[in-house]
Amino acid sequence: MFRLEDWKSFLAANQDRFLSDFIEFLSIPSLSTLPEYRDEVNRAAEWLASRMKSAGLENVEVLETAGHPVVYGDWLHADDAPTLLLYGHYDVQPADPLELWKTPPFEPDNRDGRIYARGASDMKGNVLLMLQACEAHLTTTGKLPVNVKLLIEGEEEIGSPSLPYWLANHQDKVSCDFAASSDSSQIGQQSPTIIVGAKGLCGIQIDVKTAASDLHSGIAGGIVYNALHVLSGLIASMHHAETTRVSVQGFYDDVIMPAFEDREMCALSPLNANVFRQSIGVSQLISEPDFTPLESTWFRPTLEVNGMWGGFQGAGIKTIIPCEAHAKITCRLVANQQPKNIIEKLKEHVREHTPAGVEVSVSPLSGLADPYVVPSHHPALQAADAALQDEMGSAPVHIRMGATVPVLGMLKDLLGVEVISLGFSGISDNIHAPNEFVDLALYKLGPYVYARFFEHLGSL
Amino acid sequence: MFRLEDWKSFLAANQDRFLSDFIEFLSIPSLSTLPEYRDEVNRAAEWLASRMKSAGLENVEVLETAGHPVVYGDWLHADDAPTLLLYGHYDVQPADPLELWKTPPFEPDNRDGRIYARGASDMKGNVLLMLQACEAHLTTTGKLPVNVKLLIEGEEEIGSPSLPYWLANHQDKVSCDFAASSDSSQIGQQSPTIIVGAKGLCGIQIDVKTAASDLHSGIAGGIVYNALHVLSGLIASMHHAETTRVSVQGFYDDVIMPAFEDREMCALSPLNANVFRQSIGVSQLISEPDFTPLESTWFRPTLEVNGMWGGFQGAGIKTIIPCEAHAKITCRLVANQQPKNIIEKLKEHVREHTPAGVEVSVSPLSGLADPYVVPSHHPALQAADAALQDEMGSAPVHIRMGATVPVLGMLKDLLGVEVISLGFSGISDNIHAPNEFVDLALYKLGPYVYARFFEHLGSL
Repeated sequence: MFRLEDWKSFLAANQDRFLSDFIEFLSIPSLSTLPEYRDEVNRAAEWLASRMKSAGLENVEVLETAGHPVVYGDWLHADDAPTLLLYGHYDVQPADPLELWKTPPFEPDNRDGRIYARGASDMKGNVLLMLQACEAHLTTTGKLPVNVKLLIEGEEEIGSPSLPYWLANHQDKVSCDFAASSDSSQIGQQSPTIIVGAKGLCGIQIDVKTAASDLHSGIAGGIVYNALHVLSGLIASMHHAETTRVSVQGFYDDVIMPAFEDREMCALSPLNANVFRQSIGVSQLISEPDFTPLESTWFRPTLEVNGMWGGFQGAGIKTIIPCEAHAKITCRLVANQQPKNIIEKLKEHVREHTPAGVEVSVSPLSGLADPYVVPSHHPALQAADAALQDEMGSAPVHIRMGATVPVLGMLKDLLGVEVISLGFSGISDNIHAPNEFVDLALYKLGPYVYARFFEHLGSL
Repeated sequence: MFRLEDWKSFLAANQDRFLSDFIEFLSIPSLSTLPEYRDEVNRAAEWLASRMKSAGLENVEVLETAGHPVVYGDWLHADDAPTLLLYGHYDVQPADPLELWKTPPFEPDNRDGRIYARGASDMKGNVLLMLQACEAHLTTTGKLPVNVKLLIEGEEEIGSPSLPYWLANHQDKVSCDFAASSDSSQIGQQSPTIIVGAKGLCGIQIDVKTAASDLHSGIAGGIVYNALHVLSGLIASMHHAETTRVSVQGFYDDVIMPAFEDREMCALSPLNANVFRQSIGVSQLISEPDFTPLESTWFRPTLEVNGMWGGFQGAGIKTIIPCEAHAKITCRLVANQQPKNIIEKLKEHVREHTPAGVEVSVSPLSGLADPYVVPSHHPALQAADAALQDEMGSAPVHIRMGATVPVLGMLKDLLGVEVISLGFSGISDNIHAPNEFVDLALYKLGPYVYARFFEHLGSL
């Protein structure tokens, strides 16, 4: 049996093999959203199970769900140590528009210190680096400092529809003391990063009906409700005038105000507003009164109309009074807002702002997600901090994001554990877009940090 | 030459022939909007010219315009009498959806005292009854009490695009002392009716742009402008809260308030609010403060959003911040509002209510029309009143309408004359809809009233 003095030497000695593994994994087009790729999704799951076994993990299985399978493996012989659940996903986004790729999305190209391929950043590399860290310990010492369970799903890119049911039915198998997700990013090699908070999500569709059919503005103009006037009024009523502060009664009731240290963390973040503005591509940023744009993104819930329509959309003129109008609205939520509770508040707001005699229905949209924030002094977070400091040479920054990672709230809710988001993608890797890539230098740091993370967790 | 003692006997004696003329004319599908019906439109024009000649009119011509031809004829030998221009149109709306017609739209069906056919009410019957009145005088006495010029166009149902240019280039041919349009209705046989006012029209499209592309609500939520929020705010700002009173600065500046007698005329109208509400098919009518619904329709300008759209309109959820939003708005105007002036006020309003840094453009829509009201003591109106009283047995009611009849303002503007709207359609004849019909009893009164109208005008 191949043995080296320690896991660091093992990782260094195996970089070429790891890279060819990575390229093999990336070559499987495991697109979860397109039914015609089902066999490829299954092939990726089988490839991953095989790779887990070769890393020395035990009880490796490809397990059925209502949709695509999950791949599970564990190593549970660190008797007095805690148990860490490692989360990831092996499915990828579709690659279209294909013509915008410089090299084919499923023929990984190694150029300029990067690997270009669909899934390179999101997140086949991050899945493999967790395996590499396990393999390094197991191969060099025959054991791991913590118990680990790996849970790699195949439906993240379609919203993880089967996972909550599967988790609820496999509580024993996935029980743990804390979890880590490598579906996460680093600001850069000089800024070791942990994403400590992500927003929740809820949405509604509003449907306004004012008459049985569109009416003639010459006959009924000014004397009947216009569905688009009613809906515009409703939308306008949802924010305070000329700000992004939401005026829905009770919307902020459960919001935890950022502590002084949170705001300081935000102010010191390498992501300053100007960089952020340029990355978004707008000429100015706005924000809620009393918050900077970055604070708005990190700490404040938002309400955005995603789409709205009614009446005549063709060329020219059609003098109707539309009898129907529709809007889709989603809110990004922060701790401790609850998606279902916010939907009730939105319904109540709409009810109170609808003129008598107008029919308005509010339907929840699918895709509820809880907000999630890691408690700032949690031991697993401190272990991750220490691992990043050790292996990347500087104190990590903690950032929050305005986006939603439903699995964080899901693991917290269903397993009752905190989740550390520790991944080695960059923040501008063209994920979900043409020419997705991962920076090889950053990616290669990943298994070192995870191997060290296991050690720190093992000594808790 | 066939002669009868007087025009009344002549009209009574020729009802069968008039009816077969009517059915022949209705059988020609003169749809102005569909290019494949161009030959039928021309056939209708030729048919009409031939009918004008047989009525005894002179100088009958089918005259080219930029679009469909106009049919012209005159009789100009009433030396000391004024000259009346008679306006109508021989084109019709499309008949679809065909499956909803009980009998084919271009195979006129005589049932239940009505003629069912496309164009029966709007307005081939009204064109013919003016000719019948001319023919009755000319055949029985060899002359008319007034000089008449008939101008029957073929593009009314597509907004009369060629007519203003044609009129401007044929000022001498159509010069007159006043005009009458039979593109008009009666409330019913018991309520002789003259429509003394119609609204003007102007419209704009608003295009809002807030970023170069749609943004991710998890990245940019709450810190960039959302095009649909901006547009909803703009739309909501255009009316006073919860009323239909327009809040665009200066919108009402040129509006002539209804006189006491106008409001009394409105209050006494057989069109009460409840009948009106039922005919529109809504559960309640609203109105501008200080005006009844019918007064709003008659006397007050309106602003209605006809269509609005932006962002995601598909099924499910898409968490974008839309970078574009669009709305189409039209206003119905009253005397003395000017369409171009109102467009400027709308532009100014949008400018003042657009947040700094947001790109909003306002484009005028085609289809400007001036509002039109007949001066209440105009001698031609008095002549029409007297003719209705004589032939229908009770004092006529004067009503206004919320709809737009562009030709009224166009004749006033280009020829400098007032226009009496005197027609013999009903107000619920399914015009522009399946199963259009005209009530034969009402229609048959038309030539009597017009023949008498000529006499009253001749003695002015």
